[in-house]
Amino acid sequence: MENQRILDRLERLRSAMRACGADWYLVPTADYHNSEYVDDYFKVREYLCNFSGSNGTLIVGRTEAGLWTDGRYFIQAQRELEGTGVTLYRMLEEGVPSKEEFLAQKMREGETLAFDGRVVDTRFGLELEKALAKKKVTIDFHQDLAARIWTDRPSLPCHPVRVLDAFLCGKTAREKLESVRAAMKELGASCFFLSKLDDLMWLFNIRGQDVPCNPVALSYAWITETACHYFLQEKAMSETFVSYAADCGITLHTYQETADFLQTCPVEGKILCDPNQVSYAFYKILSGRAPVIEAPNPTERMKAVKNETELSRMREVFLKDSAAVCKFIYWLKKNIGTQPLTELSAARYLDGLRAGIDGYLDLSFPTISAYGPNAAMMHYEATEESFAVLRPQGMLLVDSGGQYLGGTTDVTRTIVLGELSQEEKAHFTAVAIGMLQLSDAHFLYGCSGRNLDILARQPLWEKGIDYKCGTGHGVGYILNVHEGPQNIRWRYTEGMREAVLEPGMDVTNEPGVYLEGRYGIRTENVMVVTEAEKNGDGQFLRFETLTFVPIDLDAIDPSLMQPKDIWRLNRYHAMVKEKITPYLNAEEAAWLAEATRAI
Amino acid sequence: MENQRILDRLERLRSAMRACGADWYLVPTADYHNSEYVDDYFKVREYLCNFSGSNGTLIVGRTEAGLWTDGRYFIQAQRELEGTGVTLYRMLEEGVPSKEEFLAQKMREGETLAFDGRVVDTRFGLELEKALAKKKVTIDFHQDLAARIWTDRPSLPCHPVRVLDAFLCGKTAREKLESVRAAMKELGASCFFLSKLDDLMWLFNIRGQDVPCNPVALSYAWITETACHYFLQEKAMSETFVSYAADCGITLHTYQETADFLQTCPVEGKILCDPNQVSYAFYKILSGRAPVIEAPNPTERMKAVKNETELSRMREVFLKDSAAVCKFIYWLKKNIGTQPLTELSAARYLDGLRAGIDGYLDLSFPTISAYGPNAAMMHYEATEESFAVLRPQGMLLVDSGGQYLGGTTDVTRTIVLGELSQEEKAHFTAVAIGMLQLSDAHFLYGCSGRNLDILARQPLWEKGIDYKCGTGHGVGYILNVHEGPQNIRWRYTEGMREAVLEPGMDVTNEPGVYLEGRYGIRTENVMVVTEAEKNGDGQFLRFETLTFVPIDLDAIDPSLMQPKDIWRLNRYHAMVKEKITPYLNAEEAAWLAEATRAI
Repeated sequence: MENQRILDRLERLRSAMRACGADWYLVPTADYHNSEYVDDYFKVREYLCNFSGSNGTLIVGRTEAGLWTDGRYFIQAQRELEGTGVTLYRMLEEGVPSKEEFLAQKMREGETLAFDGRVVDTRFGLELEKALAKKKVTIDFHQDLAARIWTDRPSLPCHPVRVLDAFLCGKTAREKLESVRAAMKELGASCFFLSKLDDLMWLFNIRGQDVPCNPVALSYAWITETACHYFLQEKAMSETFVSYAADCGITLHTYQETADFLQTCPVEGKILCDPNQVSYAFYKILSGRAPVIEAPNPTERMKAVKNETELSRMREVFLKDSAAVCKFIYWLKKNIGTQPLTELSAARYLDGLRAGIDGYLDLSFPTISAYGPNAAMMHYEATEESFAVLRPQGMLLVDSGGQYLGGTTDVTRTIVLGELSQEEKAHFTAVAIGMLQLSDAHFLYGCSGRNLDILARQPLWEKGIDYKCGTGHGVGYILNVHEGPQNIRWRYTEGMREAVLEPGMDVTNEPGVYLEGRYGIRTENVMVVTEAEKNGDGQFLRFETLTFVPIDLDAIDPSLMQPKDIWRLNRYHAMVKEKITPYLNAEEAAWLAEATRAI
Repeated sequence: MENQRILDRLERLRSAMRACGADWYLVPTADYHNSEYVDDYFKVREYLCNFSGSNGTLIVGRTEAGLWTDGRYFIQAQRELEGTGVTLYRMLEEGVPSKEEFLAQKMREGETLAFDGRVVDTRFGLELEKALAKKKVTIDFHQDLAARIWTDRPSLPCHPVRVLDAFLCGKTAREKLESVRAAMKELGASCFFLSKLDDLMWLFNIRGQDVPCNPVALSYAWITETACHYFLQEKAMSETFVSYAADCGITLHTYQETADFLQTCPVEGKILCDPNQVSYAFYKILSGRAPVIEAPNPTERMKAVKNETELSRMREVFLKDSAAVCKFIYWLKKNIGTQPLTELSAARYLDGLRAGIDGYLDLSFPTISAYGPNAAMMHYEATEESFAVLRPQGMLLVDSGGQYLGGTTDVTRTIVLGELSQEEKAHFTAVAIGMLQLSDAHFLYGCSGRNLDILARQPLWEKGIDYKCGTGHGVGYILNVHEGPQNIRWRYTEGMREAVLEPGMDVTNEPGVYLEGRYGIRTENVMVVTEAEKNGDGQFLRFETLTFVPIDLDAIDPSLMQPKDIWRLNRYHAMVKEKITPYLNAEEAAWLAEATRAI
């Protein structure tokens, strides 16, 4: 069946392409800050091809179009692209060309590739330049064709920023600015252009609401040895904030002034900017003004290592959030089969429990409530138009989290609603074994996630099963649910930045099994790297788990576990019972005692 | 106690330094080919400071001297440097400056650093240039001061090369040359300077004997799209070889002509050379002649992936070699306590068993036979001057291997000679668990050794113990016992080349425990990467083990093992019994049945 709405939009795009002389038009997923999640204003790719996942790049030619996305979204993209004529390119799969390879192959002499350079990051822009260097083609990065063809485009989001209370922060903005300046000095930079939204929020101890689920405000900063210029939409500048900024020594400008400022401000020495974050359009301005030092934003690593104040708040918030998930599982198990439940109503119930927690701000991402085969899509989202009814059979995968004044949570449990096959139990058990084996890791300082990933993946690889995503990602503090530089991934990719795991960094641990058309299983906790013993062999590290929610024993087959696996599960469950019981009523507590029984 | 011999040599070196205007003199361990092991001719560093390990760099100033070596050698270096006034710098330990940092710190304006640029690899030479770029100092790389002060220096080794029979090779030299030319083309190079000795032997299907235990001949090759020039000492060119070379289309020159040839030969296009392998002196010539493409020698990866012919020969040779080690262990266990044995006599007995195997050429490295505390030194070597007497107590670590027409072996067993402490058993058991866990790995194509290392190390890290070396290295085919690019290591180092494990690559698996002054344990097998299932999740790989020697059950404590660990050990031992029994006499076979019993 043809998707006429999308076909019409692509036709309008192709007219606009002809009008500006573009033979190829490229639409990434980013906003002006290369944010992972973006406001509706920036959802040009979805508008043009119907694919709604959080990662994907559309390339439209005069007669063909392709969408590149990663393993999390293969199933979803296949479905959403149906009838659009857009070909799905499964990134990293054997024989699938990358975007650059595709363009280098397809573009003919004299052709023009156009895109909006404000939503393309520098790294990718430079890679395009390199891939096309040998072809006689033109790159035109000043074309925001969405502005011409997207008639009912939403307006740019703008909300007042909030100044965080000191007891939430551990360090003042002035202190953080001094650390940043020290890092700039070490890198030999006298100016630093910071465009990463969560880094900006962290640096100034403020929060916004311009990106759904991510408490950030659209803004930029220009930091020198003595000054700090902050660019923010005028309506976002509350009175409290304006006087706070003055106290911190921050000079305010409007967001719209950024490009002019960068083109005209005095520049001495070198400019630090992160080519993975700064847009290609701004990079072109900066690199025209002074030598650029391309390095990761020093704020990224500083933000990733949570300080003691942040960790204390997080421990509290994770307990409350875990208790909400426990209450939800109890409610779900009690009511399945006796009252009508759907993916959506279940998610709404859980969202409601979270909303009742002190300091609740928002969800940290839209709750994933995926029943049966839907759970095989890693980032499935039920909608009013399409959702499954829950039945007392199989499993419901719920991946969810909240933003609180005190932390950001992220937890997944796959909940047994009724009878399971032996294969489902075997897969669920393997996921639990891997998750617990990684949680229990004891490792030397110097390890990155690449060294540890196999601890979670091994029980699945032994069965010839893989999950097509990393095992874990960093989690923000009252910030984005995905943050770097730390992660738990195994695959090496050219030019990757591999971050050593530092004490204070938090990271998720979320192995899974995804069988298209059948079912999906994921079990996810958040952990913090902490110091273990230091001896002649070095500084050993381990993980402290922050999430305390039972792993469904109805899906565990102890006969597939080694005694050590069982010991790890029982130890975890004993902690869940001890820590969460105080938050529950008697009925819930009785259920939790049973759900965390030693096996 | 002062080591007067060394103090005198250092004094003579300092005179020579003054004579040529050098304030600092640097002596690495390499020969002209950056070989890991070197002939006596090149043992200038040992001559000057007494440290005999296989890796170490000596830096001598007017009033101080330092020796840099890695974790394998800390204990040995400490002992050998005693009384020489040379400071030991433990590489990679916290707070220890690297060689470059040390020189950048110590050298003052106007000073000169001298070395023999023929024995310094390009990478290190360029790093020195960079580290010292800001200092106003001179680098003089034409000073072979050993030629002036080492009066009884041995002569440059020179032995006739052997042409391998076709049934050993799987591919002809002509076929390999074509593959090399295809790789050159892909890299955009029209000339390729190859200086790595084992790569040269592999390429031409020849072997030499110019480096102890490494069947290589001192030589270089200059390969273009149409020609192949080979530079070899005149006396190494046997008649057979000369006519073989003519058949292969190889033009011969003498080794001594290399520098002149490189300075004067016609050069078009770009030159490929591996800055990790080519000497700084030759790099300076090449980079003066044409643009240089710095990339790993394409021969390295080709040589690392063993073809089916090579693998067939290796399987046979490893069985015979394993049988020799089994006979040795039987002999040792039978005779300990009843006849006088020493580290040396044990090693000689084992070496004799190997020498009796068909196709034996040489040891693949000097046998390490290390008793009690000596085994805590990873690369200990007993000598006529210093060796331990074996007693019916504790453990003897034997790390050994042979060169055969059919493969190169490398195996370590730690053999129980008498009573052990509970701690020794716990450590021995943990090493066995790790070794077997890695052997049993099942992993996706794309993994490098960095992803897998923790499988071997985990049981030790859990106890807060580390071994300060990689878990495994590639092994040559009738070639060097250490080869790349594959390895099993966990630590990330800037600029490292990380090789994906390809089917056909072989690698050792050798975790260990080393407690200074107490004991050392290592268990080592060689494994080959092989294909397992391929499905929608990708190509899975596993290891095929080539080494079949019992792991001493007298040191295994089954109460510390999970059922899966015990199953792995029993499965391995059943294979050892099945494969090795045919090579043994009745008495030995009876012993092997007991030594491989299921526990």
